[in-house]
Amino acid sequence: MYKVITTDGNAKRGELVTPHGNIQTPVFMNVGTVAAIKGAVSTEDLQTIGTQVQLSNTYHLHVRPGDKIVKQMGGLHKFMVWDKPILTDSGGFQVFSLAGLRKIKEEGVYFSSHVDGRKIFMGPEESMQIQSNLASTIAMAFDECPPSKAEKSYIQPSVDRTTRWLERCKNEMNRLNSMEDTINKKQMLFGINQGGIFEDIRIEHAKRISEMDLDGYAIGGLAVGESHDEMYRIIEATVPYLPQNKPTYLMGVGTPANILEAVERGVDFFDCVYPSRNGRHGHVYTNHGKLNLFNAKYETDSEPIESGCKCPACSKYSRAYIRHLLKAKEMLGMRFCVLHNLYFYNNMMDEIRTAISEHRFAEYKKAKLDGFNSEA
Amino acid sequence: MYKVITTDGNAKRGELVTPHGNIQTPVFMNVGTVAAIKGAVSTEDLQTIGTQVQLSNTYHLHVRPGDKIVKQMGGLHKFMVWDKPILTDSGGFQVFSLAGLRKIKEEGVYFSSHVDGRKIFMGPEESMQIQSNLASTIAMAFDECPPSKAEKSYIQPSVDRTTRWLERCKNEMNRLNSMEDTINKKQMLFGINQGGIFEDIRIEHAKRISEMDLDGYAIGGLAVGESHDEMYRIIEATVPYLPQNKPTYLMGVGTPANILEAVERGVDFFDCVYPSRNGRHGHVYTNHGKLNLFNAKYETDSEPIESGCKCPACSKYSRAYIRHLLKAKEMLGMRFCVLHNLYFYNNMMDEIRTAISEHRFAEYKKAKLDGFNSEA
Repeated sequence: MYKVITTDGNAKRGELVTPHGNIQTPVFMNVGTVAAIKGAVSTEDLQTIGTQVQLSNTYHLHVRPGDKIVKQMGGLHKFMVWDKPILTDSGGFQVFSLAGLRKIKEEGVYFSSHVDGRKIFMGPEESMQIQSNLASTIAMAFDECPPSKAEKSYIQPSVDRTTRWLERCKNEMNRLNSMEDTINKKQMLFGINQGGIFEDIRIEHAKRISEMDLDGYAIGGLAVGESHDEMYRIIEATVPYLPQNKPTYLMGVGTPANILEAVERGVDFFDCVYPSRNGRHGHVYTNHGKLNLFNAKYETDSEPIESGCKCPACSKYSRAYIRHLLKAKEMLGMRFCVLHNLYFYNNMMDEIRTAISEHRFAEYKKAKLDGFNSEA
Repeated sequence: MYKVITTDGNAKRGELVTPHGNIQTPVFMNVGTVAAIKGAVSTEDLQTIGTQVQLSNTYHLHVRPGDKIVKQMGGLHKFMVWDKPILTDSGGFQVFSLAGLRKIKEEGVYFSSHVDGRKIFMGPEESMQIQSNLASTIAMAFDECPPSKAEKSYIQPSVDRTTRWLERCKNEMNRLNSMEDTINKKQMLFGINQGGIFEDIRIEHAKRISEMDLDGYAIGGLAVGESHDEMYRIIEATVPYLPQNKPTYLMGVGTPANILEAVERGVDFFDCVYPSRNGRHGHVYTNHGKLNLFNAKYETDSEPIESGCKCPACSKYSRAYIRHLLKAKEMLGMRFCVLHNLYFYNNMMDEIRTAISEHRFAEYKKAKLDGFNSEA
């Protein structure tokens, strides 16, 4: 059950009730691809840095350790020791971006594993079965994510197939949720809107999937090469045609600025690898832009990454020390940067929620963007 | 100031008072080579896993970030945020084991950096100056650590030079401790006994350095290729000739069994990279021997690494999850194993101290060794 608590322009402050607790939106989900956040960050750390939802990748977990192993261990929550919500993607995006030699058929996709090359088939039913084994809180529909430069003549039939796949996902999820040995019998299903950068296809598709009464709706296939302006245009065009009484999830987005723009256009859920990936490379977010801690000017800088930040890194350690760790290739340096970046994102979402509640989101957003563009 | 609190056979339960707090012995020092424990373990984690003393490597820190940088940052304690004791080695061992093309002269050693190949000179005065810049609690004397297979004809003149170097270390440390801008003016100095596997040289050297009234005495040059029995024989022969009112430190040792044997022979201080190095390879210590978590039999093992263990890994996470992380090359898997192993060592030292206090060390040692040799 999702409800809008308050609105501020098109920005929504909402709440999604799940079997693993309530999610306050807008929310940034922290990406733990293989049931762990890269950068030596544990689920215990996630409690510390204010994570609400952990996101894991179906394709990766299917390949290793195997979703049947995870089911045997009692599902993802028990396996990684995390009792709050978990969202799993459908595996579709990884099949189309990571796996080798693919063949797309009406029944699903034939491809080879990026780990050992073995042949795998995944269709809507298989994706739902794997996600049911993982027992995540929210499962994502199995869709095709077409390349950003795809022609309209490719996109339209692809989106039509994605719609047919969504029907099959819904039926399979209903079947799985009614089965005796299913771990999470209240697994939720989010549909995914596609259509590339073509507003008419996006809108038509949004209308069709809205009729299916799913638990939430995502906008997929963005942040895959198009410009930020194209992305904002598509979000603005599509969101009004998705159900307003369901959460809206913009997949794989993005920078802090992207998130502010999308919240303003009505988006609730976000996920992105930027904070952890950038952290592992010593790039850290602050309210005055991103810092590269490898920069020589931090060699004897006794300040924390960001003054006043309450993350586990900034509460104790200096830029100089973290820079030294990064230069010496100590994992601890990466851990500190990832913890800081995830905290930065989670904390920004908290600020966003407060700003919407207090009807000053536009003002907050402007100040935040001005800060990002100022000298760090 | 060191005092023996109680003895049990030759085993000693002691206490060393330092400017950074009191050290309860026997103690295992946790090795953080470049001012960080490998495996993404922070000084905050060290508080959690019961670490009393952190050990850093003078040679590594001299090369990167540079001891002058560390001094500028207020010394190692401030740099890495750790207010308990820190011991720094002299750099000697690394110069002889890591660095390129060495020339040993009466004044010191000429060698090239393993990082960038640049020429470096280090003698007793330089080692003391670097350690004074690092501002550790305990500095180690600059010595030569000869190869394990060295002939007596090589060892004797080497040990004589080490004795002359020790005089120079003591003088330089006194000078540095009296200087205005020295961070830790109460820096302690431990001498190092050498002599290879020749008892007569070891004993003669022990007698000579005992006269210098240093803050503590180490046995160096062991665990470098000789057998365990040779090592125990040398410890047994040497310890009685080192001052009983000063702590005894067995450098670079070793396995849990090595430590039990050395404690029985009167040793107070230990350090070794085994727990962190083994942890990074998924090898974890238990009271029933070492486990290799890569082993397939742990794939669905829902037990912690060791039942009842209170380390951050065992308190929450299963062997199956940690094995999955290790297989997927997630840093988090290494972090868990290193935290567990260091906790295992620190906790064993705590048990050892209690057993000595209760005059049942022999019994404790036997039970512990029997456990290690049983099936895990």
